[in-house]
Amino acid sequence: MNVVVVGLGIIGGSMAKAIKKYTDSRVYGINRSPLPLQKAMECGAIDEIGSDDTLRTADLIIMGTYPDAAVDFVRNNANKINQNCIVIDTSGIKSKICPQMTEIANQYGFTFVGFHPMAGKEKNGFDVSEADLFLGANAIIIPCDAPHSAVDKVANLAKKLGFGTVVFATPEEHDRMIAFTSQLPHVIACAYVFSPNCVKHKGFSGGSYRDVSRVANINAELWSELFIENKQPLLSEIDTLIANLNEIREGIEKGDRENLSAILHKGKVIKEALGE
Amino acid sequence: MNVVVVGLGIIGGSMAKAIKKYTDSRVYGINRSPLPLQKAMECGAIDEIGSDDTLRTADLIIMGTYPDAAVDFVRNNANKINQNCIVIDTSGIKSKICPQMTEIANQYGFTFVGFHPMAGKEKNGFDVSEADLFLGANAIIIPCDAPHSAVDKVANLAKKLGFGTVVFATPEEHDRMIAFTSQLPHVIACAYVFSPNCVKHKGFSGGSYRDVSRVANINAELWSELFIENKQPLLSEIDTLIANLNEIREGIEKGDRENLSAILHKGKVIKEALGE
Repeated sequence: MNVVVVGLGIIGGSMAKAIKKYTDSRVYGINRSPLPLQKAMECGAIDEIGSDDTLRTADLIIMGTYPDAAVDFVRNNANKINQNCIVIDTSGIKSKICPQMTEIANQYGFTFVGFHPMAGKEKNGFDVSEADLFLGANAIIIPCDAPHSAVDKVANLAKKLGFGTVVFATPEEHDRMIAFTSQLPHVIACAYVFSPNCVKHKGFSGGSYRDVSRVANINAELWSELFIENKQPLLSEIDTLIANLNEIREGIEKGDRENLSAILHKGKVIKEALGE
Repeated sequence: MNVVVVGLGIIGGSMAKAIKKYTDSRVYGINRSPLPLQKAMECGAIDEIGSDDTLRTADLIIMGTYPDAAVDFVRNNANKINQNCIVIDTSGIKSKICPQMTEIANQYGFTFVGFHPMAGKEKNGFDVSEADLFLGANAIIIPCDAPHSAVDKVANLAKKLGFGTVVFATPEEHDRMIAFTSQLPHVIACAYVFSPNCVKHKGFSGGSYRDVSRVANINAELWSELFIENKQPLLSEIDTLIANLNEIREGIEKGDRENLSAILHKGKVIKEALGE
């Protein structure tokens, strides 16, 4: 298989490395700046630097750029993509991206499948990418208009790269769930470290601080795009969270232990029902 | 050294095991219910079940019960504690506990030092206790009125048990910092999993969900006591968090990427200044 990875950040870089490690595909890399390409060549994450020609002969194009940039790239290069090629994105938002991608794909005759690997780190860039980033992670596939055979191919590739569970969703389902599972924790982490006491935490903190604050070291440019393009589901989750915080807050202020204990106990019930 | 551990939950049990592993003390266990005592005997976490006599000959008494129960136990048994004995608690709150403990200690002639091991798990009880729970963890010592020599002994013990950093604080400093580093993350975890989307997260989540929700499987009885007895610092942290969430919320609602990016970027600045 000829695979072109566009955007060699942590996700694109890890996809390239995983494909080299777990399949026998030829991998080409395309990136705005030259340094990640050079590093990817040096460590064998890609076989060659991609070009218009490699786009023409690609069986699979993986978009590892920011969401809007992914749409722009595919639109600007659509006339070079052959009709047997599958294009997948790896964006964290889908309602805005997938319909545009599907429209371009339908117009030019290739296939688009939405894809979201639920893996990452609190650092970004090619340097922290790794072949085994996806081992056991969830993969969300947004089939959109793609034929079954193409969706199957993407699901099979995900399994080969080590993903654990593969789930299928509409763009809207995806965005609603991701607002809760991924975007809200990033909002929380930032809001949490804004506390004036954060800078004094050393010596006084343990695992709880570490876990809640982990993703506060945020790529602000990327996440501001993701948040704004998923505005309604995310605002709804933030409002729900604030309402829930206020419920607990009132329980503390009232000072009735039994009442507060009953509120908090819901957390245990929810986690245990999930087997966590 | 003769050590009595009162309350063999995760913290008391781990202290007993760590003392057996890293010092050559004799350890006695006291517990309301008999099963943890039996288990502690079987696995060698304690040498004997404690009694009034072992309290009388103790060099160190470690309170591993809930905070109020710790004060009650020490008050009810103060007349059995010898004048060379150091009593430490392991409670998550200090402003309410330490002055009472110090008063009892002064009255009966023994020494009290406040102690807070910053370690734990999302599960409770003797079964999840372990000798190496404290390796690298922070230990907070609240010297109160204790003489230097006693405070040094507690600090040296902490180092022997594998704690990383040992810091000293007043009860008020401790409670203010713990409201941020430990209590607020527990409030957040519960408020987070109360979202109706939580039960549907499987297949759609990754490390961010796992980390933020980890401590939602909460011991509601214990934490409702800790929260209410640290009401003002905790309410203040919750209010700060809600204000910060609203700042980010407004940035998202406005939809100005540059503005939102500038807000979020503060998270990166704070974390990087902390070397995280």
